[in-house]
Amino acid sequence: MFNPTPSTNTTGTHRFTIRVYYEDTDAGGIVYHANYLKFFERARTEWLRELDINQTHFLQQNIGFVVRKVEMDNFASAILDESIVVTSSIVSLKRASVVFKQHITNQQQTILCSAIVRLACVNFTLHKPCAIPQIILGAFKRVS
Amino acid sequence: MFNPTPSTNTTGTHRFTIRVYYEDTDAGGIVYHANYLKFFERARTEWLRELDINQTHFLQQNIGFVVRKVEMDNFASAILDESIVVTSSIVSLKRASVVFKQHITNQQQTILCSAIVRLACVNFTLHKPCAIPQIILGAFKRVS
Amino acid sequence: MFNPTPSTNTTGTHRFTIRVYYEDTDAGGIVYHANYLKFFERARTEWLRELDINQTHFLQQNIGFVVRKVEMDNFASAILDESIVVTSSIVSLKRASVVFKQHITNQQQTILCSAIVRLACVNFTLHKPCAIPQIILGAFKRVS
Amino acid sequence: MFNPTPSTNTTGTHRFTIRVYYEDTDAGGIVYHANYLKFFERARTEWLRELDINQTHFLQQNIGFVVRKVEMDNFASAILDESIVVTSSIVSLKRASVVFKQHITNQQQTILCSAIVRLACVNFTLHKPCAIPQIILGAFKRVS
Repeated sequence: MFNPTPSTNTTGTHRFTIRVYYEDTDAGGIVYHANYLKFFERARTEWLRELDINQTHFLQQNIGFVVRKVEMDNFASAILDESIVVTSSIVSLKRASVVFKQHITNQQQTILCSAIVRLACVNFTLHKPCAIPQIILGAFKRVS
Repeated sequence: MFNPTPSTNTTGTHRFTIRVYYEDTDAGGIVYHANYLKFFERARTEWLRELDINQTHFLQQNIGFVVRKVEMDNFASAILDESIVVTSSIVSLKRASVVFKQHITNQQQTILCSAIVRLACVNFTLHKPCAIPQIILGAFKRVS
Repeated sequence: MFNPTPSTNTTGTHRFTIRVYYEDTDAGGIVYHANYLKFFERARTEWLRELDINQTHFLQQNIGFVVRKVEMDNFASAILDESIVVTSSIVSLKRASVVFKQHITNQQQTILCSAIVRLACVNFTLHKPCAIPQIILGAFKRVS
Repeated sequence: MFNPTPSTNTTGTHRFTIRVYYEDTDAGGIVYHANYLKFFERARTEWLRELDINQTHFLQQNIGFVVRKVEMDNFASAILDESIVVTSSIVSLKRASVVFKQHITNQQQTILCSAIVRLACVNFTLHKPCAIPQIILGAFKRVS
């Protein structure tokens, strides 16, 4: 059984655990900073999945989310083999965009990194913003 | 509870499930080929973890494994959102090196990718091969 | 012939050209958002190199820069094969930290992405902030 | 000034220089092994570009190359800030596939890594092999 998403989203927050591998680290011995953005996106994706949203379905229609703005603060660094938790919540929801607040904690409950991430829904064929599909908008509303 | 390693290693094989995220794909709409090497390494790492091997402990002593040889065949491509399984087994074990045979299957049990990966144990300070630490060698012997 | 480093830093700004490869893109057909942070870092690194700063030398003393804060705005997306230019300048310089303002333009001079990146100098052994080495601080002062 | 593309392809070999950045390294202090596959692909891409092949043009028709087989030997590791050279040649050319022989050397002319990479031309829409477009096939023939 595949169970990588021990989430608790009854309160409108989602938690997702990620393991740090060699691929995530750099020669400084810590997680390379750009990779936190990957971790945040994995967590958003898993939340969508739990809300029964199939992103591939929308990608086939050339619709998807793109990151429009990131504000990330890095307080401390994750290291190899650490098990870290990404906590996510939605702080703003509009017709064509959504803002997530996310942070990453280690096993000692220290906040390593926090971010505000604004996503816009776009049509990849037209390279233009478009309305968030109703089924996704509805799911976001239920948890925000 | 964090449970990303649904393994069955009683028969000397290890299975590890991985989800494909946007970060893993490329503009061809499929997983970028180099990323399969990351998936194979995640699986080896999780197997080590289940065998109670703490890689960070050895890294702190500047000892770790480096990939010396890869033979990878790609038969078909994983796509966004797919849940794929990496199956691993050890096919050769020497004093300072180990060879894994690994393959990746999708949910339809199609083999997407297979690989033979030879790893050498090295001292990162001396930039030289070294014997595999006894505790790791013993663990490998139990499953090979 | 493609010449990736046409820099002009007489005015305190640095320009660095980067080519977009398959590895940089995702299934949306555009550059994966986290990779812009890699591009910004490559540009900072090349600027340091032009200022005759050898980062490896400092890494061997376990001293390096870590990203402490990123504010990134993505206006449009780079695509496969595009040649993009990262423009960088220093907007703040303190004893142990430095703030860069950077943006990425395409060949049509459209700004695709801009960022404010704050870096702290740290001792990787002690996991603590430390003063920026004098030779680096001096170089930063000359261009800021 | 660092000039990443000193190519010499009069003899059917292509040379491409790459700089190692933090993003390429891992906690072992060396280039993460999967990234050599990225370097090899960058070199193949630049060779295509010098042969006046526009990959994006073909991607828009959903045609591109996928890696079908990799045999990679890693003899030594590249480290942060190193300037390495990828040397490429074509060793086999068929109607729908091409095989490259590539290796990476450092500034001391030590071979760090060598690879045989077989690529198939595929139609990404049909997920099927297809003939290499004539203009690309012709270009490959001229240099192989």
